[in-house]
Amino acid sequence: MSFNFELLHQEKETAARVGKITTVHGEIETPIFMPVGTQATVKSMTPEELWEIGSQIILANTYHLYLRPGSKLIAEAGGLHEFMHWDGPILTDSGGFQVFSLSDLNEITEEGVYFRSHLDGSKHFISPEISMEIQRDLGSDIVMAFDECPPHPADYDYLAKSLEMTIRWAERCKKEMQDTEQALFGIVQGGVYRDLRKASVEALLDIGFPGYAIGGLSVGEKKEEMLEVLDFTVPVMPEDKPRYLMGVGTPEDLLEGVKRGIDMFDCVLPTRIARHGAVFTSHGRITVRNAEYARDFTPLDDECDCYVCQNYTRGYIRHLIKRNEILGARLTTYHNLYFLINLMEEMRDAIQRDRFMEFYRKFYQKYKI
Amino acid sequence: MSFNFELLHQEKETAARVGKITTVHGEIETPIFMPVGTQATVKSMTPEELWEIGSQIILANTYHLYLRPGSKLIAEAGGLHEFMHWDGPILTDSGGFQVFSLSDLNEITEEGVYFRSHLDGSKHFISPEISMEIQRDLGSDIVMAFDECPPHPADYDYLAKSLEMTIRWAERCKKEMQDTEQALFGIVQGGVYRDLRKASVEALLDIGFPGYAIGGLSVGEKKEEMLEVLDFTVPVMPEDKPRYLMGVGTPEDLLEGVKRGIDMFDCVLPTRIARHGAVFTSHGRITVRNAEYARDFTPLDDECDCYVCQNYTRGYIRHLIKRNEILGARLTTYHNLYFLINLMEEMRDAIQRDRFMEFYRKFYQKYKI
Ligand SMILES: [Zn+2]
Ligand SMILES: [Zn+2]
Repeated sequence: MSFNFELLHQEKETAARVGKITTVHGEIETPIFMPVGTQATVKSMTPEELWEIGSQIILANTYHLYLRPGSKLIAEAGGLHEFMHWDGPILTDSGGFQVFSLSDLNEITEEGVYFRSHLDGSKHFISPEISMEIQRDLGSDIVMAFDECPPHPADYDYLAKSLEMTIRWAERCKKEMQDTEQALFGIVQGGVYRDLRKASVEALLDIGFPGYAIGGLSVGEKKEEMLEVLDFTVPVMPEDKPRYLMGVGTPEDLLEGVKRGIDMFDCVLPTRIARHGAVFTSHGRITVRNAEYARDFTPLDDECDCYVCQNYTRGYIRHLIKRNEILGARLTTYHNLYFLINLMEEMRDAIQRDRFMEFYRKFYQKYKI
Repeated sequence: MSFNFELLHQEKETAARVGKITTVHGEIETPIFMPVGTQATVKSMTPEELWEIGSQIILANTYHLYLRPGSKLIAEAGGLHEFMHWDGPILTDSGGFQVFSLSDLNEITEEGVYFRSHLDGSKHFISPEISMEIQRDLGSDIVMAFDECPPHPADYDYLAKSLEMTIRWAERCKKEMQDTEQALFGIVQGGVYRDLRKASVEALLDIGFPGYAIGGLSVGEKKEEMLEVLDFTVPVMPEDKPRYLMGVGTPEDLLEGVKRGIDMFDCVLPTRIARHGAVFTSHGRITVRNAEYARDFTPLDDECDCYVCQNYTRGYIRHLIKRNEILGARLTTYHNLYFLINLMEEMRDAIQRDRFMEFYRKFYQKYKI
């Protein structure tokens, strides 16, 4: 098994921790934010730029790549790393979340899910085994179990039943993924219910995975609900395995997650808002697309030392975004990803020095939400 | 006067020549292709990437920048170089071509042109003096005279009359542009008529400019007509000044222009076709967007040593273009500009060695039109 997680430092006051994940394609210092490359590209960025801003691992979407260009085609190209010219670690999701949120669902059975593509209505079937096969074709370093993603809100009984099937599916995923260099993560479900989350963790532990994700959050629940779920879920998760909070990515959520012991995050937010002209700054989020920035010839963030903030002004970037120029989306995306990745680096440093809460307070003093 | 042109080598068999232009923002080896940055950005490219592919000078469009974000705003930012973070030479057109082709023309008078913006219908007036003022605000290194751009086809009498006014306008431009470090180029008009082109050159020579452009070509006339105009126009142009063929940019047209003694070219073609998934290769143009390239895991051009051809395949780029991914447009644009700029470099080398026709024949043997 070439996958490994090492807990390097547990912060004194909080659950925050620093660790190191080893994969075939390199090491990852945690906690880490993973840029999302849905269609085998982190929108607008080259792999070289992703390295430049300190990306250690990126994410790609199984559902999208399965539909187009097709996972078999990517396998022919030599796998996702070769296809997209990124030789660092890659994590792929299982396709489950998109099957349940994007596609026309036809039927959920014990065997798997029948659905129609959101693109052309074509019929498809994905089971735990098929999801593993697709992810094997993609050749990612971290593979996610295929789970049912219940809608939010869902009632307790529905969630409890869904959870049971998800556990059976997790077992099938593990069976299918034996004897590979790909590390399969289990996904903790259970909505906002403490006992369901706990049961989910325990069942997954019985099966045994090299890492565990928390799914079913950031799907429309209140911020306090999400934090409460973390508060009672993370403590029952194993210490010696990486913990991945799926789909979470505002600066403040990263801070809250790390404080509670989360090691990995991903989200399309920084890249999506960038394309609409919104950027993170040390003082909060701003919409640089707005008229007030037309004659602002200062950087996006005066405390940021990224390529964009060293060379371009808000006024110029606003002009580019207003004109729908590709360079506009490039510059805002680059800065936003840098901002989050740099934030994680600063958090790792604060954790190492047992000063996480000092960092946490200083962040909120400046960053207006 | 900080602008200078030096003729370095006249090829033996053809009119092709190698020269050096000096501007405040650096030197330019000619013949050269200038990437077009209509909205103060060469679509999808950073200035660093433009340097990387060997761009020596870029072009920006006065009409577009005057309307949005406004030339006064750019002057406030410190001029175009500062605004867009490009510190190499910049050439701006006069706005004439766009006023005559994009806007709703209201009235052409001796004083100037009344028109409505193609964006919002707002009323504007541009005269030779105003065009110079706008270009002064932009702070470009090479400034183009404001000329009337007659529609194609136009009859002889219309062209003759238009030419006379354009000459009077050129005089007014020169008067307005004295005592600046910006070099003002005159524009030769006269359609496809030999005597009009000759009269145009002579009248401009009487006024005296540091460089001369050939306008009114590549506007819908036949290829043979364009080459014929070059055949009788270039020889009457001065040897010791740069010659700029406006709006021309296919590989074969660059070859034909250089052969006839042209020093400078610009065109939106390489960047525009790139965004639609078409690229130049040593063997001719291909549309990499097409289905036949889905499983083609070879580079765009197997003879190209650009960043894109060293790291990406046709199959991946096809996938990106089909999915409308920004990286797709980035990669095709990068390669196409590199292709033309590298072609110019190869031509300069062939001219220096007095082997231009050998290069010319070899090019056509491989490159299928
Ligand atoms: Zn920045
Ligand atoms: Zn290339």
